[in-house]
Amino acid sequence: MPSAIKIGLIGAGSAVFSLAMVKDLCLTEGLAGSRVAFMDINQERLDIVRRLASRYAKELGADLSFETTTDRVACIQDADFVINTASVVSHEQVLATRRLGEKHGYYFGRVGSDEYVFRNVRFMLDVAREMESVCPDAWLIQAGNPVFQGCTLMTRETGIKVCGLCHGHYGYREICDMIGIDWHSVTWQAPGLNHNIWLTHFLYDGEDAYPLVDEWIAAKGEEYWGLDVATLPLPPEREGRWTPELQRAWDIDLSRGAVHMYRMYGLLPVGDTPRSGGWWYHTDIDTKRYWYGKPWGGQDTHISRPLYVENLERRIARMAKLANDPRASLVEALGTEKTTEQHIPIIDGLVNDNEGQFQVNVPNRGALEGLPDDVVVEVSAVVNRKGIQPIHVTPLPPKIMLEQIYPDWLSMERQLLATKTGDRSILLWNILDYHMTRSYDQAVAMLEDLLAQEGNEEMNAYFEGPSNW
Amino acid sequence: MPSAIKIGLIGAGSAVFSLAMVKDLCLTEGLAGSRVAFMDINQERLDIVRRLASRYAKELGADLSFETTTDRVACIQDADFVINTASVVSHEQVLATRRLGEKHGYYFGRVGSDEYVFRNVRFMLDVAREMESVCPDAWLIQAGNPVFQGCTLMTRETGIKVCGLCHGHYGYREICDMIGIDWHSVTWQAPGLNHNIWLTHFLYDGEDAYPLVDEWIAAKGEEYWGLDVATLPLPPEREGRWTPELQRAWDIDLSRGAVHMYRMYGLLPVGDTPRSGGWWYHTDIDTKRYWYGKPWGGQDTHISRPLYVENLERRIARMAKLANDPRASLVEALGTEKTTEQHIPIIDGLVNDNEGQFQVNVPNRGALEGLPDDVVVEVSAVVNRKGIQPIHVTPLPPKIMLEQIYPDWLSMERQLLATKTGDRSILLWNILDYHMTRSYDQAVAMLEDLLAQEGNEEMNAYFEGPSNW
Repeated sequence: MPSAIKIGLIGAGSAVFSLAMVKDLCLTEGLAGSRVAFMDINQERLDIVRRLASRYAKELGADLSFETTTDRVACIQDADFVINTASVVSHEQVLATRRLGEKHGYYFGRVGSDEYVFRNVRFMLDVAREMESVCPDAWLIQAGNPVFQGCTLMTRETGIKVCGLCHGHYGYREICDMIGIDWHSVTWQAPGLNHNIWLTHFLYDGEDAYPLVDEWIAAKGEEYWGLDVATLPLPPEREGRWTPELQRAWDIDLSRGAVHMYRMYGLLPVGDTPRSGGWWYHTDIDTKRYWYGKPWGGQDTHISRPLYVENLERRIARMAKLANDPRASLVEALGTEKTTEQHIPIIDGLVNDNEGQFQVNVPNRGALEGLPDDVVVEVSAVVNRKGIQPIHVTPLPPKIMLEQIYPDWLSMERQLLATKTGDRSILLWNILDYHMTRSYDQAVAMLEDLLAQEGNEEMNAYFEGPSNW
Repeated sequence: MPSAIKIGLIGAGSAVFSLAMVKDLCLTEGLAGSRVAFMDINQERLDIVRRLASRYAKELGADLSFETTTDRVACIQDADFVINTASVVSHEQVLATRRLGEKHGYYFGRVGSDEYVFRNVRFMLDVAREMESVCPDAWLIQAGNPVFQGCTLMTRETGIKVCGLCHGHYGYREICDMIGIDWHSVTWQAPGLNHNIWLTHFLYDGEDAYPLVDEWIAAKGEEYWGLDVATLPLPPEREGRWTPELQRAWDIDLSRGAVHMYRMYGLLPVGDTPRSGGWWYHTDIDTKRYWYGKPWGGQDTHISRPLYVENLERRIARMAKLANDPRASLVEALGTEKTTEQHIPIIDGLVNDNEGQFQVNVPNRGALEGLPDDVVVEVSAVVNRKGIQPIHVTPLPPKIMLEQIYPDWLSMERQLLATKTGDRSILLWNILDYHMTRSYDQAVAMLEDLLAQEGNEEMNAYFEGPSNW
């Protein structure tokens, strides 16, 4: 007997993500009869999503109903689950801030990321607080970034059950592909903080697979790191929602940089982890090419990041075209295989006791030793009707804790303290602390320009004291 | 009835420090009959110290006996107290390392300080371990730097009772002098970590004295910060063991930099604290002059630091001259007032229950909230026969914890982890983490040259793995 639930999906205008949720729902028998409320501030995109969702479900004969709203309260009313994938800072704004950084002498980097964090975590907190009064028993599945800061803030400030999700941990599959083993036969664990996770266990058919990584490095590393990856053909099985360029730009799982981190720490950084790891990998495009591969230098350069934003736009256009072509078969266009997203399987586990193990971001409470209980960590969890139960994982090596985890934790705490207090000097300190900053005056100028940017008016007004420095 | 004890003084070749101890001992009736074992690797200096000590005690009619030894075990045998003021890294070596940094593109700074920390904490640990077998019940008073790292390591690794001491907290008196109040009428508290303490309480005649600081800043700040302090006469009451140049160079208690920190944090940094505080105060000599005053830019510049070393040499020469002049009155030369050192009063408190309050560095155990129990903090303590009892102080503001205390704590933990493991990559990471480092290659070159320096042979051999980065 299936369990009909209501899912409120915030930020549903992202058609690709929304359709992924719909697809997984259609293919999950235990959730038949459920309804999904798509919420976004863009009604046009919502209409596209609803039309696509309804047609897809109809083609499959799935019993689901869909509604759209631009009103958040209507979306979460009576919801059993709220999935929040929205960002109040657009990709264009992120690009604009990176370009502002360039104007102030920084290479295309993260120097202005407090803007992104502050505006999004305030938004997340608004959602969680709204849930406290509208649907206090619902689960919040947080899909939009910054997961680490946002989930920590929401679980500290509200009583809502929050689970943050990310794709990064699938990086272990890319590692498997690189070293030529089938990831279906792999057992793994990669705990840490979101975007900062480390492969503590990596077993292939029950045997330690790290020696295979070492063999790959010894036999193929230098050759691979010397390649222009743009010249490599993309295997057909990897063709998908990203362009081949992007896929290749993102192949940093065994880049020279990732392997350097592995050599420093004895464990591989997984997924989004090697994208940061140390300022020295990121000083300029040539340095990034050295550590992350030619020609793009990884996914965070002035060349590759615009490709990502363009690709998103192309995907939106493709979805709009599908929606406007009533003769197109959506089953043909979208396929009938479950996605790799964890959201619906987790819901199925919680609702129907269809137990599974997932990589989640939840308050620590002892799962990862050395961090306070009220910090959200990324760990494996068993999910069933009892709830989301993090596994007490093997502690990370002290060196990783001291050089990677704790600094990241402190950075998060400073961002949350700034968010709570409106203390402009913390924002200044964060820019000063950014390794690429060369002088006090540079940091002051960067901060003032950042807060004067279009879209940051409220943030600028909020961050007042102390400002007599 | 006085309590005759034995004090072992390691690093006793530092005549000024040793004579200060002797002076305080002579002037402490409750410790009459005690003996002091001066230990150093330099027998010549030891002889000078013993001659001066004996003559001074004789002139005062104090009942004390003195012996010298170059053997550490003989020094601590039967000791009730061991005072360790030695550094195995000479001032000249510290200067050489700073100059090595300059060669690698750093302004005269702390980039190679792991050398100083590693070699000295290993030495301290040797002393503490020796005490465990020779005089396990004795107190160790740690006067040599690095107090924070060394005391934390010793209290973690041995069962010896350790109390670290520093002069920095007396900075509150300089602040009083600057704003024109009598420090004898001041109540204060400045907890934190050694060289990282913050004036949480500052009462003058029972009233908050911070408004007086604010008045000084408003009325006199800009004028003072614009002065060439070399042109200021030194008041006669400040003439002392340092040259007037050094005294002025060290007057940074209400420098523009210290006041900037006060504006950022709402509390004044005390003593050695404003000497660090943020990399941006230290990028070059002009920047340091801006924040710490003209012409020297504080006590850590390529101009003022050599003055300090020269002054030490002059003091040694002066002591040698005194020792070699049997007609000189030592009472006249050294005075008959107790010094401001805390060592002997603390011993008097512990031995004779002559209770007092002191600024000590001891394992936290809840004294300063937010730090683990096994981290040595600098706090006020009541000292009497019961022991050294840290006061549970007011917690520091979250911003100070997140921007000043925790980063310093992590830095200490990394240094101790490096010391424990011999992991060269942690030393590399520390140089990379040093804000002035501009590239990976620069850090590697700096580290290799540092470890190849004369005097670091053992350190170079010790730090082996992992080194395949």
